[in-house]
Amino acid sequence: MEKFLLVLEVITTCCAVTQSMTGQERSEEKSECVSLSPMMEAVPAPPESERVCVFGTGDLGRSLGLRLLQAGYGVVFGSRRPHSSSSLLPHGAQVLGHAAAAQSAHLIFIAVQREHYDFLVPLANQLKGKVLVDLSNNLKKNQYPEANAEYLQSLVPGAEVVKGFNTLSAWSLQNGPSDANRQVYICGESVEAKQAVIAVAIKLGFSALDRGFLSVARELEDFPLQLFPQWRLPLRIAIGLSAAFFFYLLIRDIIYAYVTQSKDISFRIMVSLANKVCPIVSLIMLSLCYLPGVLASFLQLYRGTKYRRFPDWLDRWMLCRKQLGLLALGFAFLHVLYTLIIPIRFDYKHASLSLFQIRENRTTQFDMTTAWRGDSYLSLGILGFGLYVLLGITSLPSVSNALSWREFSFIQSKLGHLTLLLCTAHTYLYGWNRFLSSSTYKWYTPPGYMLCLVLPSVVLLLKLLLITPCVDRTITRIRQGWERGADQRNPKDSQPLIP
Amino acid sequence: MEKFLLVLEVITTCCAVTQSMTGQERSEEKSECVSLSPMMEAVPAPPESERVCVFGTGDLGRSLGLRLLQAGYGVVFGSRRPHSSSSLLPHGAQVLGHAAAAQSAHLIFIAVQREHYDFLVPLANQLKGKVLVDLSNNLKKNQYPEANAEYLQSLVPGAEVVKGFNTLSAWSLQNGPSDANRQVYICGESVEAKQAVIAVAIKLGFSALDRGFLSVARELEDFPLQLFPQWRLPLRIAIGLSAAFFFYLLIRDIIYAYVTQSKDISFRIMVSLANKVCPIVSLIMLSLCYLPGVLASFLQLYRGTKYRRFPDWLDRWMLCRKQLGLLALGFAFLHVLYTLIIPIRFDYKHASLSLFQIRENRTTQFDMTTAWRGDSYLSLGILGFGLYVLLGITSLPSVSNALSWREFSFIQSKLGHLTLLLCTAHTYLYGWNRFLSSSTYKWYTPPGYMLCLVLPSVVLLLKLLLITPCVDRTITRIRQGWERGADQRNPKDSQPLIP
Amino acid sequence: MEKFLLVLEVITTCCAVTQSMTGQERSEEKSECVSLSPMMEAVPAPPESERVCVFGTGDLGRSLGLRLLQAGYGVVFGSRRPHSSSSLLPHGAQVLGHAAAAQSAHLIFIAVQREHYDFLVPLANQLKGKVLVDLSNNLKKNQYPEANAEYLQSLVPGAEVVKGFNTLSAWSLQNGPSDANRQVYICGESVEAKQAVIAVAIKLGFSALDRGFLSVARELEDFPLQLFPQWRLPLRIAIGLSAAFFFYLLIRDIIYAYVTQSKDISFRIMVSLANKVCPIVSLIMLSLCYLPGVLASFLQLYRGTKYRRFPDWLDRWMLCRKQLGLLALGFAFLHVLYTLIIPIRFDYKHASLSLFQIRENRTTQFDMTTAWRGDSYLSLGILGFGLYVLLGITSLPSVSNALSWREFSFIQSKLGHLTLLLCTAHTYLYGWNRFLSSSTYKWYTPPGYMLCLVLPSVVLLLKLLLITPCVDRTITRIRQGWERGADQRNPKDSQPLIP
Repeated sequence: MEKFLLVLEVITTCCAVTQSMTGQERSEEKSECVSLSPMMEAVPAPPESERVCVFGTGDLGRSLGLRLLQAGYGVVFGSRRPHSSSSLLPHGAQVLGHAAAAQSAHLIFIAVQREHYDFLVPLANQLKGKVLVDLSNNLKKNQYPEANAEYLQSLVPGAEVVKGFNTLSAWSLQNGPSDANRQVYICGESVEAKQAVIAVAIKLGFSALDRGFLSVARELEDFPLQLFPQWRLPLRIAIGLSAAFFFYLLIRDIIYAYVTQSKDISFRIMVSLANKVCPIVSLIMLSLCYLPGVLASFLQLYRGTKYRRFPDWLDRWMLCRKQLGLLALGFAFLHVLYTLIIPIRFDYKHASLSLFQIRENRTTQFDMTTAWRGDSYLSLGILGFGLYVLLGITSLPSVSNALSWREFSFIQSKLGHLTLLLCTAHTYLYGWNRFLSSSTYKWYTPPGYMLCLVLPSVVLLLKLLLITPCVDRTITRIRQGWERGADQRNPKDSQPLIP
Repeated sequence: MEKFLLVLEVITTCCAVTQSMTGQERSEEKSECVSLSPMMEAVPAPPESERVCVFGTGDLGRSLGLRLLQAGYGVVFGSRRPHSSSSLLPHGAQVLGHAAAAQSAHLIFIAVQREHYDFLVPLANQLKGKVLVDLSNNLKKNQYPEANAEYLQSLVPGAEVVKGFNTLSAWSLQNGPSDANRQVYICGESVEAKQAVIAVAIKLGFSALDRGFLSVARELEDFPLQLFPQWRLPLRIAIGLSAAFFFYLLIRDIIYAYVTQSKDISFRIMVSLANKVCPIVSLIMLSLCYLPGVLASFLQLYRGTKYRRFPDWLDRWMLCRKQLGLLALGFAFLHVLYTLIIPIRFDYKHASLSLFQIRENRTTQFDMTTAWRGDSYLSLGILGFGLYVLLGITSLPSVSNALSWREFSFIQSKLGHLTLLLCTAHTYLYGWNRFLSSSTYKWYTPPGYMLCLVLPSVVLLLKLLLITPCVDRTITRIRQGWERGADQRNPKDSQPLIP
Repeated sequence: MEKFLLVLEVITTCCAVTQSMTGQERSEEKSECVSLSPMMEAVPAPPESERVCVFGTGDLGRSLGLRLLQAGYGVVFGSRRPHSSSSLLPHGAQVLGHAAAAQSAHLIFIAVQREHYDFLVPLANQLKGKVLVDLSNNLKKNQYPEANAEYLQSLVPGAEVVKGFNTLSAWSLQNGPSDANRQVYICGESVEAKQAVIAVAIKLGFSALDRGFLSVARELEDFPLQLFPQWRLPLRIAIGLSAAFFFYLLIRDIIYAYVTQSKDISFRIMVSLANKVCPIVSLIMLSLCYLPGVLASFLQLYRGTKYRRFPDWLDRWMLCRKQLGLLALGFAFLHVLYTLIIPIRFDYKHASLSLFQIRENRTTQFDMTTAWRGDSYLSLGILGFGLYVLLGITSLPSVSNALSWREFSFIQSKLGHLTLLLCTAHTYLYGWNRFLSSSTYKWYTPPGYMLCLVLPSVVLLLKLLLITPCVDRTITRIRQGWERGADQRNPKDSQPLIP
């Protein structure tokens, strides 16, 4: 209709009608416009004459066709057996043989598996100059020597191949774009061809990104095959830490008890041990999540500028902070559950013992300090976990998108460090006076909760340094684009918005 | 490219080329299109001369008007009392009487209740050839014999009625489209009219879907009246199961105790009984959530193709898996809470008894097996619930959108079945040796947890069959489009992406 | 504007003008463009000749440039030292000196800090008639006498300044628009300039909202500096209530015990006291969340129309209901955790005592009523919390967007009031017979849970009144646009959709 209006505009103007005319008056003008040029045929030209063609009547082909129809395009399916396949096809679409279909449109979506591309070779003539959109994906990476799109181009040199839409599932096509998968990535040699595809994408409600030349196709084809790329590293760390501490505690608790008192308490692996590993790993991961930020600040401080790239390892680390934090939350969640079921365990006396050495006191006289310490310990844990959960919620895509950059950084940085502080204090209170008593160090090894306190303590100390007024001021200026030793007369090409 | 196409249209049309031309042929035509001149007058035509009209100054009318203004349209309100109503209207909009307003634009939004449509009849002349967008909704389904839009068309035959935008609330109009409600559904007879509305929708940031002819209007008008259509069936199942097991357990526990030992423990309905119903229903619902997938696989295996539709009952079932799973999670959540409060219940000894028969052991000698079993039972439950929650989180729209199709299926299928496995094992361990002791079968009826084990066990067994290498290979090939007994020379029109 | 640009393209090309011409020069060409022919050059004119210019090579500038390139625009960076800065710039972009860059495009994004705007003054000639998009932000509100955009306009009077895109972070620019930050706000004097910017925004996948004239710029510049504006009031209320009740209970419990029995139980501040404050504040906040809705209904009922604005205080209150509810949920969550850890506290006997006075009964004979009451109390709490969580989940942006308006109101209103009912009953059962025993009123003050019952009880009573058939009918009619004493012949300009 935009076009329609515009054509009208053209007409009206060539009728020398004043701008102030309304669309309606224009449509009345039309009749008179006949004589001044065959233009008014422009009007009946129904926009759905923007016809596109879809090769392939599989799930994806059908979904795409339906979507195109609904967006107002005329759709022609190309099929090897037009009649048999037409049954499943969306209502309103034409079905023709491949050759005829190719004739009928400038833009052709290829929703066919790569193995069957060869059927396109005989169509070379009909496809000359057409835009072929390669939607295909592979089952695993590097399945073939070259990308499907490049292979397609080599089969039909006359056509302009554009790789795109392959990151969408038939499902998301049918149900329309939603937040995260609104992005469609395309690549190809011809700018015009890409523009044509972008236009279609926009009309379907997607936003298309041109990733460059056809050589990028392989990369695009690997997208849908990715399995949590950013989660790999954090998961490995989590698993590694869990395993390490599991065996460490296995030896210190179960085996030690067995060797020294020849007492078999192996059953405690299931809950007691698990409930020691979880909090330890959780706390370490949480501090690993805030350490890189602190390091980066010190690096900027040392360099005196924000315009130099961070070393790659730091960049990678910064990029998986979110995942580190969420895994830490997961372990904290398990820790909470494991702690809460302690009272309903059959060996209640045991568990409580394993929980606080000071349980006996109950029978003996009442100790005020112990009372304070015990309750503070629990209370800090609860508050820490509460904030933990809050951080988790705000890292949900839809929530974090709703936050302004300043709000997000406030929560993730300020509240994040507060959470770390609470959880660390929680652990210190758990250790309490046992840090000193030699009995704690079985076989001269420190208990797990002591080991896991090292990292968070370091992070908190460094952070403390950073927020001291003088250091803080410098950091802020650097982040605003100030460079140590740069002459201040030239404009700084920078933005306060970005940290 | 839109533009590019468009200019071509202008050119081709002034060359009196027939519509049926494809974009490509057009580009060949160009050469003849030499001499059409006074085009440039088109230019000064300021885009805000794209004026639209809104009838109705209610909440929706005002919100729509504001949004249109902000998107750069000129807005004219039509009101029965221009002066009184103008106070509330968005700044920058004109207010005219209905007739004058109708004159001023080609596109008219009707934000008026159906009961008042009759005021449009006298405007028939001004409305001739205009596009009327019917935004109205009804209070309940089938309130009127025909759809509002059809009624409107019958009142103003000269105009082109398009149904649309009615699924949006004034709220979402004011606050702009967001993830899920970006979709605007429209329908109508005239393709041009619909294109005009689609163009406006896109400019407002929505993506419009053409649902077909005006006869679909009723369907669109029923959208906003829907109340959780996909939740109906799962909710009914949940309620049904809960009721059934509630009465079953009521008889087995409370009434049995009353009849045999004439002991009144009715108070235990509130917690103990609830805490038996919840886990039972949860486990059954969870297995109901994975059963259809397994059945579908076997069906495909049996048919040897993926190109035949599933029976409707299976389709419907598959479509409510998400809801089934979430309800199951809800019950699991309650089960966890009910379990965790057991120790703080006043009849602590009781509760624990009702929880493990083996509580007495505590007083007697310490039993290793029992210890192992008790702790494993709890640990499995906790891990199962942890995964449960993870599944729930990944089914949040914004999270699942952020996942690639492969990631989503990994979590929902692999982790889902693992969850089912853990929860089933959890229940088996709960039953433990009581499966054999005759005392368990009061009145010769099996306890609830045994009944609820049947379904998950079946699902897990079937799944086990499916993942055996040989079966798995066949399934995979079928899902890639391979058809048993189809000759492999023809291209398969299918996509690996889709399962 | 899209059209505008486009037609220009046609013209310029048929004038055989080189691409390097800027849009502005083109518009000057127009007049001569009358009679020139060979249109086919229109085609080769590659759409990326829609060249835009970006001043500033900082984070934001680079991200914006990349995004523009990917959307198919030609990008020219203006930098004070083209060679040094080009290293970091996105591949495919040109880098020129500021003057040359300004020449090359009609649209210029200014991604430079306000302090450095003065470098634009000498460019006044090259910038004449150009559209300058001011992306800048400040570090704090009212940092400067006038908005950055107004300051820019004053520096370069010849150019058309448009404020916009400043609400986006470099991050969201690079990663593309997502749900909540798809909206781009712009303002400026020239309609055409704004249309040009809107066109770019749409192509980048954003939806732009025209907020009016340049005088609004300050408002737009304050957006990214906001820190939870809608959370301020609810947070203050929450903190105020917590503090008040904390001290109230501190006096009634700890100090009272100290004074009367000179017994120091101060340690109970950490858990017992916290666990009294949390539920009290939670319940009060929840009722505060539903009170305004009830008041609004009564107001409409009293006025007999929905067409009159609510008093401001009520409007503001209504707008922060969501925040009130979520904070209430937070406190409820803490209450649950605090309750569940009671059994693992070292002073178990104590805690339980502090939990139910009736704990002693356990040792004495078994009391049926107490049993019922105790279990119902817990069960209601659990169910209430379950619904609480459900409400919280449905208020996640991505979830609430997926709900139709009717579904959302069903959950938030119906289920919401049910939650309030359950939690209130939970508290009444907690109080139970203690409402009467004089021993409850230490120092003649009522315990906290009684005070917190007042508000919810009132809300529930009022709601009860509203849902009585007769009142309900009137409300419904009013919400459908019916006005008491208005003659019914005129059409009502209203929408049933909106409450």
